[in-house]
Amino acid sequence: MNINEIIKELKKGTAEIIDFERIEKLIKDYYENGKEFLVKIGMDPTAADLHLGHTVILNKLAFLQKHGAKVQFLIGDFTARIGDPTGKSVTRKVLSQKEVEKNAGTYKEQVFKVLDPAKTQIMFNSEWLNELGAGGLIALAGTFSVTRMLERDDFTKRYNAQQSIAISEFLYPLLQGYDSVAMKCDIELGGTDQKFNLLMGRTLQRTYEVGKEQAVLMMPLLVGLDGTNKMSKSLGNYIGISEPANTIFAKVMSISDELMWEWYLLLSNKSVDEIEALKASVEDGSAHPMEVKKALGCELVERFYDEANAKSARAEWESVHSKGALPSDMKEYESEGKIWIVEALKLCGLVNSSSDARRAIKANSVSINQSKINDEQLHLESGEYVLQVGKKAYAKLKVKNGI
Amino acid sequence: MNINEIIKELKKGTAEIIDFERIEKLIKDYYENGKEFLVKIGMDPTAADLHLGHTVILNKLAFLQKHGAKVQFLIGDFTARIGDPTGKSVTRKVLSQKEVEKNAGTYKEQVFKVLDPAKTQIMFNSEWLNELGAGGLIALAGTFSVTRMLERDDFTKRYNAQQSIAISEFLYPLLQGYDSVAMKCDIELGGTDQKFNLLMGRTLQRTYEVGKEQAVLMMPLLVGLDGTNKMSKSLGNYIGISEPANTIFAKVMSISDELMWEWYLLLSNKSVDEIEALKASVEDGSAHPMEVKKALGCELVERFYDEANAKSARAEWESVHSKGALPSDMKEYESEGKIWIVEALKLCGLVNSSSDARRAIKANSVSINQSKINDEQLHLESGEYVLQVGKKAYAKLKVKNGI
Repeated sequence: MNINEIIKELKKGTAEIIDFERIEKLIKDYYENGKEFLVKIGMDPTAADLHLGHTVILNKLAFLQKHGAKVQFLIGDFTARIGDPTGKSVTRKVLSQKEVEKNAGTYKEQVFKVLDPAKTQIMFNSEWLNELGAGGLIALAGTFSVTRMLERDDFTKRYNAQQSIAISEFLYPLLQGYDSVAMKCDIELGGTDQKFNLLMGRTLQRTYEVGKEQAVLMMPLLVGLDGTNKMSKSLGNYIGISEPANTIFAKVMSISDELMWEWYLLLSNKSVDEIEALKASVEDGSAHPMEVKKALGCELVERFYDEANAKSARAEWESVHSKGALPSDMKEYESEGKIWIVEALKLCGLVNSSSDARRAIKANSVSINQSKINDEQLHLESGEYVLQVGKKAYAKLKVKNGI
Repeated sequence: MNINEIIKELKKGTAEIIDFERIEKLIKDYYENGKEFLVKIGMDPTAADLHLGHTVILNKLAFLQKHGAKVQFLIGDFTARIGDPTGKSVTRKVLSQKEVEKNAGTYKEQVFKVLDPAKTQIMFNSEWLNELGAGGLIALAGTFSVTRMLERDDFTKRYNAQQSIAISEFLYPLLQGYDSVAMKCDIELGGTDQKFNLLMGRTLQRTYEVGKEQAVLMMPLLVGLDGTNKMSKSLGNYIGISEPANTIFAKVMSISDELMWEWYLLLSNKSVDEIEALKASVEDGSAHPMEVKKALGCELVERFYDEANAKSARAEWESVHSKGALPSDMKEYESEGKIWIVEALKLCGLVNSSSDARRAIKANSVSINQSKINDEQLHLESGEYVLQVGKKAYAKLKVKNGI
């Protein structure tokens, strides 16, 4: 890869880059003089269970590691260990030193599925924040104004809505920025929702005269399985990187074709050109989208397990879905509101009567989304379904407002 | 003194008392059970040179010491030692440990002219604030909201005027309140300008479940020699408690009769009834205001020196001002802007010509405010002056906008 190719791949999927020139210079400097550079990534130590959403950034870091980056993997243990003197907080989870260490161990295990351990330094911010002391924190808070802090999107909204903002919340972005001062990083990566805090690191490196100002590379938030919301554990629309290989593969297979292309950009290691070529071959009919999706599933399983697991996960999925690809010319139907399976089969013209429908269900010849069903009391809620009776009769049914 | 009398004297001159019942209970408890109580007073360690303005609160503390109070004299060394990481601050004076200790020594020397050392504990907040650490400070900042902090008068004004407020400024009131938590004080004294911070101590004692909530006693700010502005070193309208006895006495003698009564309330140890009696005797003509003022001067000099010094300061002043009281029927003149002494004497009709004026100055027969002058280039700036030529010719001159 020449520099231009590296830059092109680096930009793949990014949402915004601040001080791009600096990043370019760092990479050039690595190739010309062998000089490595420091890339910071901060992780919340309370949630050590990573899902694909987290790996968007890890992938970008892994890419950078191939081109001169030493990754500083920061575990923000300091703030996680702060208690609530009022004893009133229900949301704040305070971690003990032991819990932090345990989470750190789990983190390492997971991130090293993506990152190169030889080029990764695990850091804990308690190291410099304990030393900072109350005095250092006050001095830090003296460098930034209330008005500027209130400019942060979520603060503005809450302030205007007269929702309470604790003064401590003004300190967290400063501490995150101060981490960059202590770590002397050259680049920080984060999600677009972190922009204010990422820029704080840049500002504070200038204020504290670190001698550099970190560039910032922001990745978009990964959309989850539902195709709509940001991937998150609480919404259930996620793929955990420690889930079984078969589960990961099957979950990948469940996403829409549209989302698949977004995931390719953010999750696959294929190059921009390779992805474009795939797209083109799907468009001209030379490749089937399902095959392209399987390739993504394999790539991801291989990343978190190995090639053998990827192959067997694919084989397992194919055997379950052995009827092969669905016909592309299925008729489509809609239901306003929740619908009983017997009515649904009638609506889609797959049976002639209710008794026909019941008989088919009993005979084990009805599938929903390629899985057999045998409950004739089943009701379909909001969503899209492929209904199938026997080997040949297919229909698509969209249930609206059905909850 | 019975409890009612003590309460009456305690209230003398106060601007506002919060939780008065508690103070009453503490004093009763002292007299009934011999139980002492803790009274906090905080002092800025950057200005160890005390003037009468500071002693308003010290007097009240000295009164309380006679009725059960152990005074906690807090030197806020912690914040004074915080540097400015930007290096841009010109107003913040950072003190070294050595300077803090030196100032503390100077403080003790001065405050023990008023307070009883046996019932006073000198404290330094670095003791518990160093220990608090950045984590403790964040937890502390978590107990109070941005909105409530912005309710502090000066913050509201500055925020609305779009003047910058550093986030650190939100931390100082919290630290001051936390001092009360650490000190477990029963009462805190302060000026009316400190109300928000004093109440913070009360709030935080509740939040941290200290088991008590400090009562708050606020004293008004002492008006300085000019009769208008708060006494302050920077305005020059002050009497330093370490100034020579003669100077203290003479400065007291220079204040207006009206201000004298305010000073009696805030500075004298005379009881409410005694002061009322003095006022009555001035009103009915049985006492001359100047004599009453001399008594105040003597009381103050005696407090900071001793009776002998008070007597000699009074004698010295009387000999300088041997001509007795100024005539009460002096003519009054005004000058718009700074005026040359020669012009001033002409304006007031004390001389017939400029050469007359020069001659009088050379002959050492011109006085301003009863002090001889000999500089014929003197210019009078804003203020009120008694001009005198020879033994009999007096005039009052008011110079406006003269700086």
